[in-house]
Amino acid sequence: MAADPRTSAWVATLVGGRLVGPPDLVVTGVASLDDATASDVSFLANPRYRDRVLPSKAGVVFVPGGFTETPPAGRAWVVCADPSQAFSAVVAAFAPPPVSYPPGVHASAVVAPSAALPASVHVGPGAVIEADVVIGERTVIGAGCYVGQEVRLGDDCVLYPRVVVRERCRVGRRVILHSGVVIGSDGFGYVSGPQGHTKIPQVGIVQIDDDVEIGSLSTVDRARFGRTWIQRGTKIDNLVQVAHNVVIGQHCIVVAQVGISGSTRLGHGVVLAGQAGLIGHLTIGDGAVVMAQAGVSKDVPPKGAVIGSPAVERREFARGLMNLKRTERLAKAVQDLERQVRELRQRLGGDQH
Amino acid sequence: MAADPRTSAWVATLVGGRLVGPPDLVVTGVASLDDATASDVSFLANPRYRDRVLPSKAGVVFVPGGFTETPPAGRAWVVCADPSQAFSAVVAAFAPPPVSYPPGVHASAVVAPSAALPASVHVGPGAVIEADVVIGERTVIGAGCYVGQEVRLGDDCVLYPRVVVRERCRVGRRVILHSGVVIGSDGFGYVSGPQGHTKIPQVGIVQIDDDVEIGSLSTVDRARFGRTWIQRGTKIDNLVQVAHNVVIGQHCIVVAQVGISGSTRLGHGVVLAGQAGLIGHLTIGDGAVVMAQAGVSKDVPPKGAVIGSPAVERREFARGLMNLKRTERLAKAVQDLERQVRELRQRLGGDQH
Amino acid sequence: MAADPRTSAWVATLVGGRLVGPPDLVVTGVASLDDATASDVSFLANPRYRDRVLPSKAGVVFVPGGFTETPPAGRAWVVCADPSQAFSAVVAAFAPPPVSYPPGVHASAVVAPSAALPASVHVGPGAVIEADVVIGERTVIGAGCYVGQEVRLGDDCVLYPRVVVRERCRVGRRVILHSGVVIGSDGFGYVSGPQGHTKIPQVGIVQIDDDVEIGSLSTVDRARFGRTWIQRGTKIDNLVQVAHNVVIGQHCIVVAQVGISGSTRLGHGVVLAGQAGLIGHLTIGDGAVVMAQAGVSKDVPPKGAVIGSPAVERREFARGLMNLKRTERLAKAVQDLERQVRELRQRLGGDQH
Repeated sequence: MAADPRTSAWVATLVGGRLVGPPDLVVTGVASLDDATASDVSFLANPRYRDRVLPSKAGVVFVPGGFTETPPAGRAWVVCADPSQAFSAVVAAFAPPPVSYPPGVHASAVVAPSAALPASVHVGPGAVIEADVVIGERTVIGAGCYVGQEVRLGDDCVLYPRVVVRERCRVGRRVILHSGVVIGSDGFGYVSGPQGHTKIPQVGIVQIDDDVEIGSLSTVDRARFGRTWIQRGTKIDNLVQVAHNVVIGQHCIVVAQVGISGSTRLGHGVVLAGQAGLIGHLTIGDGAVVMAQAGVSKDVPPKGAVIGSPAVERREFARGLMNLKRTERLAKAVQDLERQVRELRQRLGGDQH
Repeated sequence: MAADPRTSAWVATLVGGRLVGPPDLVVTGVASLDDATASDVSFLANPRYRDRVLPSKAGVVFVPGGFTETPPAGRAWVVCADPSQAFSAVVAAFAPPPVSYPPGVHASAVVAPSAALPASVHVGPGAVIEADVVIGERTVIGAGCYVGQEVRLGDDCVLYPRVVVRERCRVGRRVILHSGVVIGSDGFGYVSGPQGHTKIPQVGIVQIDDDVEIGSLSTVDRARFGRTWIQRGTKIDNLVQVAHNVVIGQHCIVVAQVGISGSTRLGHGVVLAGQAGLIGHLTIGDGAVVMAQAGVSKDVPPKGAVIGSPAVERREFARGLMNLKRTERLAKAVQDLERQVRELRQRLGGDQH
Repeated sequence: MAADPRTSAWVATLVGGRLVGPPDLVVTGVASLDDATASDVSFLANPRYRDRVLPSKAGVVFVPGGFTETPPAGRAWVVCADPSQAFSAVVAAFAPPPVSYPPGVHASAVVAPSAALPASVHVGPGAVIEADVVIGERTVIGAGCYVGQEVRLGDDCVLYPRVVVRERCRVGRRVILHSGVVIGSDGFGYVSGPQGHTKIPQVGIVQIDDDVEIGSLSTVDRARFGRTWIQRGTKIDNLVQVAHNVVIGQHCIVVAQVGISGSTRLGHGVVLAGQAGLIGHLTIGDGAVVMAQAGVSKDVPPKGAVIGSPAVERREFARGLMNLKRTERLAKAVQDLERQVRELRQRLGGDQH
């Protein structure tokens, strides 16, 4: 940390932004617009929060080019192209140093003699590494993790405490697995008969490619045969279920509590919003978006956007909601027509049937 | 436990209720109305189960004041203001002694020298306590728990086996964390560009205030900056997702499998029923109720009650359901009108266009 | 493994199927129709994939009797009654040997002196077995599992790494618990008053009968009193929530991310599809089916099938969807009627009111 006090001018220089207001405001931390005090740096990213900038107490606020209000006395703006990214830079400058994981194997870890670990690997207390595991350079195996037989982990991975990776799964480079993640448990498959459900062996693996991140308490089942496959750059949030033989393409975003059923295939750049569910054996095209809580039971074309349960194309869903409201107007119109027709019949004289 | 046999009279005295029936029925256990035998105590709390009291075999049943049936031969009622609470008292009297966690650190636990633990703390087998942790009096750290660097835990907390609390998080007094809970994993935040998704550092913490309870396998993400905050007295069920920078007010109830997205703020006394989902950046007012499986995408006012996906005010939802049914009646009315109009036209003679 | 190369004829003999095509095609592995190469065995089970058999490169494909296409040169079909089951047999023949768990207690495990373990039991590294536990023959306790005081586990169970079974729960024979499962955490029960929510003691247990399998990161809460009960042969997928005092009958199927609220009772052979939610105190009849994402708030009769949130009988749901679409047609009909009635009035001359 810098010994000298940090100021509004220092902030503007750090992020390459344009300072509007006094250069000598002392800043000591970061906070949201609502929580900030006079010595905090804050930011306006979401236009939704535009009205919160002036009432905020934040000494320095990152704002986008279009924000033209004048800062009140004793406060300053820093105009920049991407206020959120600028804020991340300041957050990093004020953040405590991250936890470091020095190379070495803790005395309480249990590592099979046949496991291949470079000296640069960190293995935390109580971690278990089974036979014939191969681990890449600088990878961190957190306290209490379990790495099963013949698993391969690439370079620069981080497994936070209490991750389980079962036998024979393959994990690429720079993969982050958060606490509680379970990779490679058995897929859910049975042959059902009069005697009950007989387990179908699940002898495949899970393959996770480079730069994937998986949130805490998410689980990816091993394939019935072959592999369940999560491709490069995909990010998965917490408490997500990925069933056996699912394929998730590159750079997808899978938000918390989503469930993907067996053998469904996602293209590249697909977004599944929170709590969405997909039945099995579907194909979801590149760039498709599945909205929150959607229940997808049909293929989605590339760049498609679906919503609802059962999920339909976004416009069809909107029409459905509109129709629901329209019914009240229709009911009134029908009542009115009934009245008019009754009147017309009366004017024409007695019914003919 | 009492040496003498327990009787219906003993039960009535224990809970301060009025005995209706013989005082000398021997009771040896507790059970639900359906499962009870003649020597069990049971209770009627939910009016839904009213019809199950007479068919039940339970020797003694706690009933509310309004229950006026006469007990059959060999059975008794105990009339009391709160049958459920009375039942809890008897359950406690019959329950096996709870598991005790004697003070001390198990030989297999790994505790950093810089961690500050009073002698009254219990640390179970295989637990890991990192550097600069501070723990309050009488707190229980179950087997295999992981407590990260600089974490603070207050007095009288219980962390059941296999809980993870990551670095720098703060936990108040009398907090209960059930097995599998993960506190302080990274929030789900990326800057997306043509090269994929770049991780936004998540350098904040989680703060959990006094008297909070969190169910098994729930997860609370650390803030991007500042804190994710769960306030005093809030109770969270199992498999719940709390995203980064969420604030949950005091004495809220969050039922199983709920998901709360980033930066959403709940007031005090909010109830989120099971599997509800809330998008980010919302404000949910004090005392609001979100019904089961609701998908909330707009602010909810204090004492509001919403349901549906997308969630709407409760009465609007009911109207929607009604409209859906009304359509069939409308279709018939329209058919009838069409017939009448056809007939009217015929009576008026040939069409004019 | 056989020393000689495996061929299409060997495959047909293994599964007792009828070979259509050359007997001497060499096969070295198994794969799905899409992924297979010329030396792979594949299968057609789902009629949905019928069109993928001819374009597939699979050397040998299991097909059902009704599949009458002729195999192209260099490929063969094996016609059999159950292509999926036949495929499982070949998968098993090609699968690597399963992980073996030799009898014995790992040196790093912590086993209470009063626990009763036969010599045939496997206890992995770091597992904790508390006082008065009783374990059956050949049961496997994976690395880092926690088995609480007085728990009973039957013969031939497998607890994968990092399972928690809390005090006094009872588990039958041949039960499989996947990694991260939590059995016996406290039910979610409070008495709410002006001072907040007071915890209701949860002093019951969980009972799991023979041949149950529970997927990773699922949780079953202990009963308030008595037992939460999962009966023989039931299979539960990942991330499922089973609340206190729930009873699940025999041979049920509970798919991923389902939530079952307190005291609800399922009959035998019930199917709950993914992400379904059930409120408390319901009765779901034998053989009932709850569709994916359904929100069940009423009892379901035996063999009933419900869908939607709130869930309704399947046909009623279909009618609702139809009504939603019908509204547009109705709106047009009403407009047309309004035009005709206007015209009729004009022909009849000036209005009379």
